[in-house]
Amino acid sequence: MANTIPYKIYLEESEMPLAWYNLRADMKNKPAPLLNPGTLQPMTAAELSGVFCGDLVEQELDDTTPYIEIPEEIRDFYKMYRPAPLVRAYCLEKKLGTPAKIYYKFEGNNTSGSHKLNSAIAQAYYAKKQGLKGVTTETGAGQWGTALSMACAYLGLDCKVYMVKCSYEQKPFRREVMRTYGASVTPSPSNETAVGRKILAEHPDTTGSLGCAISEAVEVATTTPGYRYVLGSVLNQVLLHQSIIGLETKAAMDKYGVKPDVIIGCAGGGSNLGGLISPFMGEKLRGEADYRFIAVEPASCPSFTRGKFAYDFCDTGMVCPLAKMYTLGCGFIPSANHAGGLRYHGMSPVLSQLYADGLMEAVTVEQTKVFEAAEQFARIEGILPAPESSHAIRVAIDEALRCKETGEEKTILFGLTGTGYFDMVAYEKFHDGTMTDYIPTDAEIAESLSKLPKTE
Amino acid sequence: MANTIPYKIYLEESEMPLAWYNLRADMKNKPAPLLNPGTLQPMTAAELSGVFCGDLVEQELDDTTPYIEIPEEIRDFYKMYRPAPLVRAYCLEKKLGTPAKIYYKFEGNNTSGSHKLNSAIAQAYYAKKQGLKGVTTETGAGQWGTALSMACAYLGLDCKVYMVKCSYEQKPFRREVMRTYGASVTPSPSNETAVGRKILAEHPDTTGSLGCAISEAVEVATTTPGYRYVLGSVLNQVLLHQSIIGLETKAAMDKYGVKPDVIIGCAGGGSNLGGLISPFMGEKLRGEADYRFIAVEPASCPSFTRGKFAYDFCDTGMVCPLAKMYTLGCGFIPSANHAGGLRYHGMSPVLSQLYADGLMEAVTVEQTKVFEAAEQFARIEGILPAPESSHAIRVAIDEALRCKETGEEKTILFGLTGTGYFDMVAYEKFHDGTMTDYIPTDAEIAESLSKLPKTE
Repeated sequence: MANTIPYKIYLEESEMPLAWYNLRADMKNKPAPLLNPGTLQPMTAAELSGVFCGDLVEQELDDTTPYIEIPEEIRDFYKMYRPAPLVRAYCLEKKLGTPAKIYYKFEGNNTSGSHKLNSAIAQAYYAKKQGLKGVTTETGAGQWGTALSMACAYLGLDCKVYMVKCSYEQKPFRREVMRTYGASVTPSPSNETAVGRKILAEHPDTTGSLGCAISEAVEVATTTPGYRYVLGSVLNQVLLHQSIIGLETKAAMDKYGVKPDVIIGCAGGGSNLGGLISPFMGEKLRGEADYRFIAVEPASCPSFTRGKFAYDFCDTGMVCPLAKMYTLGCGFIPSANHAGGLRYHGMSPVLSQLYADGLMEAVTVEQTKVFEAAEQFARIEGILPAPESSHAIRVAIDEALRCKETGEEKTILFGLTGTGYFDMVAYEKFHDGTMTDYIPTDAEIAESLSKLPKTE
Repeated sequence: MANTIPYKIYLEESEMPLAWYNLRADMKNKPAPLLNPGTLQPMTAAELSGVFCGDLVEQELDDTTPYIEIPEEIRDFYKMYRPAPLVRAYCLEKKLGTPAKIYYKFEGNNTSGSHKLNSAIAQAYYAKKQGLKGVTTETGAGQWGTALSMACAYLGLDCKVYMVKCSYEQKPFRREVMRTYGASVTPSPSNETAVGRKILAEHPDTTGSLGCAISEAVEVATTTPGYRYVLGSVLNQVLLHQSIIGLETKAAMDKYGVKPDVIIGCAGGGSNLGGLISPFMGEKLRGEADYRFIAVEPASCPSFTRGKFAYDFCDTGMVCPLAKMYTLGCGFIPSANHAGGLRYHGMSPVLSQLYADGLMEAVTVEQTKVFEAAEQFARIEGILPAPESSHAIRVAIDEALRCKETGEEKTILFGLTGTGYFDMVAYEKFHDGTMTDYIPTDAEIAESLSKLPKTE
């Protein structure tokens, strides 16, 4: 019977989703609105339109329409690298000797190396449709910047990326991929913006931060005619676009009559996890089915598990809107974990609300344990995973090993968000035994949380 | 009508080939046998068994059996990353404005980043089956070494890779991927072998060469009990394993009633080109169909187009068997072209015989033109190609542009052997305008060819 399920399930093009699924439509407790950082009142569509393009503002605010059509141009782009395979991890199951059935949705088979391209093309498309000249963004590890560069190159849109200076210097190859796609990549902080010049004057030796890069990108977008700012995670619109991950996964599983018991994903800002779980969570919210959902975060940046559900700034510079989310405080500086994509102080407001309502669980893992799982997975399943994705692998393997003890034949599904080809410095440290773990103290977190803005 | 063909054709698992196709069985003029470097007599099975394991010796010498069954264990491994997609390049066609229909077989969707894994798993499997402890090999750019490391990790076989010293130093990330898969990676020349120590004594500052690394790997394989040597290209057995590329391609095209007019592939040692064309060339040899075949080589290393069809050593150190092939002379040192996988003085004896018999064409391209095509392709088709693969892209685009002039609706098929994620230094040089072209002079080639061994 098991043999009737292939190693990889690829949907036919004709089976690919025609619409994104908007999970908010099925949520009883809607995610709280973004607040204007000046007035602390909910951001209006008009206010958001200065930063984001029109269609995206609409998607950001729409919490009632369950399905939103994917424009044909975006579906055509998706066809270049999607459907992504749903893989049955036969080799891993065998190696672990577990009765569990393990599946993973692999989003790394494209040059950006991750799922980020799913939202990048959508955001670039709407910018182009509105007649804009270009977009600005920030990037840390570089996956989002690469994805956006690819989308902009395809559509003939200008792309300005502000890359955290230390990443710019440590990851020259990521930078070079973005240049291949015609993006301008500027190390942040830079002299190109007022906020950059201010920071450089105060801290001439700074190696930058994501918060600073966001501030620069937003400044350029809001002061340059024909430009808007785009963001790769956290936002409601991003989760909407990323629902393609879960929709394809569910379609592939339904095709073979498979139902997952537990669904696992890494969580930084929540774009991948939110996308993967969306249609399954929708069923749970509508009372049609039940699933266990597990968010995996790094022990060094535990927003869900040790943060507070409160309004906070989305950026370190405190110029962006406030979101109600699980946060460690926008001044929290996570230690130098190699999963750059998970080093964010906050969390998607949608996922935050679901977690607050007890609809999903969250766990933390330490990075050396994560790299043990990454290496094991690479050797058995043949894919070198990104450090971020490996957080989900760690928990999936642990869950499968528990099934081995109990004899349970659970079906485990996890999101394999991307590949680690540009993360070999981290693997090298792991091999050399120089990788360390860091867990923030209660005092550190309390200190950071004490500075949360007063909004009520 | 065109819309009935999807962007990507994935065969079902049940449609995957069960046997490799041995093109030699259909060749009237068989490729000439390897010669013993000492006696200059054809290598016997017994002699070859000291270097290669038994089943592979059999495959190397078998030029009559048309189909050789793929063992189930290898087919299971193939299912982890195959079938590879056959992509219809709709976006590229549109951008070029050509009436041509362009298809490419993409072999880069696995962590080795290329088609090399197809033969690596086969060679590792037979070594394991024979009860060997491990295998040795050399690697230049690192794709073959990575592929072999992956195969050995999967089977629990020891893997010793001798990596050309300058590559070892310039490509630390490739080296780290191999370490992730548990391989030992030694910069060559090393102090571990007699030949390495000899070379280091004579040339203490050498940065190594593929020829030297081969000599070290062969020495270790032949002097360490339980080890054999494996090679990623040139050999007949490698073309046999790589026939999976062409077999899948043909099955996918047949499924949609498509017949290519011209088939294009890059040629270094010939593993990818030979694999891609095998079943099509078989039809041509049996008079069942006709196709145009084009081998693309770098202008800096033009074995087919400017070399001689003669017996020559397979390695620079002149310790390996001699093969009858198109060669530039085993002492020929190609300039520092960034397509490391194409920097080989010789060529597969099978392809050499076919070329000598007028059954295929060959052209050369210069590397700056190759990178122009690579960047254009990346931006339109969303895949960042390897420099090697980009040689085929260049010629496919040129062919499609000729169709635009003539109005011909040719069907063009090319092999996209891999991704360029570990080649960003080359892309950087291209972007910075510091990439140069080099074409060897007639005098240089004549000088090198004057030293060919006298075998008759």
